[in-house]
Amino acid sequence: MSAAEETTGEDAPWGEVTPEAARRLLVAAVDAFAERGYHATTTRDIAGRAGMSPAALYIHYKTKEELLHRISKLGHERALSVLEAEADREGAAADRLAGAVRSFVRWHAERHTTARVVQYELDALGEEHRTEIVALRRRSDAVVRRIIGEGVRDGEFDVPDVPGTTLAVLSLCIDVARWFNARGSRTPDEVGELYAGLVLRMVGARRPPREPGAAR
Amino acid sequence: MSAAEETTGEDAPWGEVTPEAARRLLVAAVDAFAERGYHATTTRDIAGRAGMSPAALYIHYKTKEELLHRISKLGHERALSVLEAEADREGAAADRLAGAVRSFVRWHAERHTTARVVQYELDALGEEHRTEIVALRRRSDAVVRRIIGEGVRDGEFDVPDVPGTTLAVLSLCIDVARWFNARGSRTPDEVGELYAGLVLRMVGARRPPREPGAAR
Repeated sequence: MSAAEETTGEDAPWGEVTPEAARRLLVAAVDAFAERGYHATTTRDIAGRAGMSPAALYIHYKTKEELLHRISKLGHERALSVLEAEADREGAAADRLAGAVRSFVRWHAERHTTARVVQYELDALGEEHRTEIVALRRRSDAVVRRIIGEGVRDGEFDVPDVPGTTLAVLSLCIDVARWFNARGSRTPDEVGELYAGLVLRMVGARRPPREPGAAR
Repeated sequence: MSAAEETTGEDAPWGEVTPEAARRLLVAAVDAFAERGYHATTTRDIAGRAGMSPAALYIHYKTKEELLHRISKLGHERALSVLEAEADREGAAADRLAGAVRSFVRWHAERHTTARVVQYELDALGEEHRTEIVALRRRSDAVVRRIIGEGVRDGEFDVPDVPGTTLAVLSLCIDVARWFNARGSRTPDEVGELYAGLVLRMVGARRPPREPGAAR
């Protein structure tokens, strides 16, 4: 599935990028980076995919790195807000952790083209931009660590190594972007449900979580 | 850590590639692909990194794709043999699964540069080569699925979805290649030990596994 197809989902993933020409260029850049890698993609390739001239591209983005930064920043912000929405709900830690995993997995499955670029091209960012993205990643880590820590404090979870388990939970969710296939046998929702159950086992949750329908 | 540095580990990872010039070219290709991506790397880059001429490269490899195929095939065969060695031991499924996770994680941490190329550049392989690699991946999947299935059969594990849990276990281990940092706070052995414990929870293992020392 291309990034362009992804935009046909329920919410336009790059709707915040305006004007329309800038949005089209960004969608084209996601596709090109995912297909050939950042270094093998030229701004000419990106402009061509968007049906525009290289000169038109430079009106919106000064460099190829600026495009990657924009994609990476928006991608990380989206993923973080998905996590935060679940973490900040009312309720038991088990329900919030299950909800966070379901949403985060769904995001990485539905937006797997974007997520691959976001996760695998970090080294191509300039130093200042990379520092900014690393800070966003630390915030995602802190959200999951906080839910797990609250579960331990409340006697819901049994976790000998909270930072290590946090790392493993996020890693499991993120890697969905690598292997997920829209033509495969599992839907994003099904993977989210499977993983929510596995993660509750990883944290030694003492009781089964509420059904996703009931938790909403 | 570069692939060249990785070769300073206890076992030379590309020792089976001969003659020495072919091995040096392969190490250079791993480094170049990991750093810039397959499509952005030229055979001239690879030859230059190996201190050789492009003409000398063509004596050993007809195309850039042949180099990627060789890397991918050897990488997958190594990872598979690591899994099989643990799966074929005597003993309880919990001990074998923990051993398989420890070894597979250690491989992906110690060889993370190689593993990234192997895992992220599959789409760049020609159709015939890709089919061959996919068959190796199915064998790795079958090894883990078999251990989990045996644990369920023997009443050691409680797993509602064996194929889904197998997918998650392998995904968790493979993603170590993405985030592992040789300068980070955890060694490959420590990540292997952490993950073995988490995976036994994922399969609902009924008793703790033996200590790694005792299992050897």
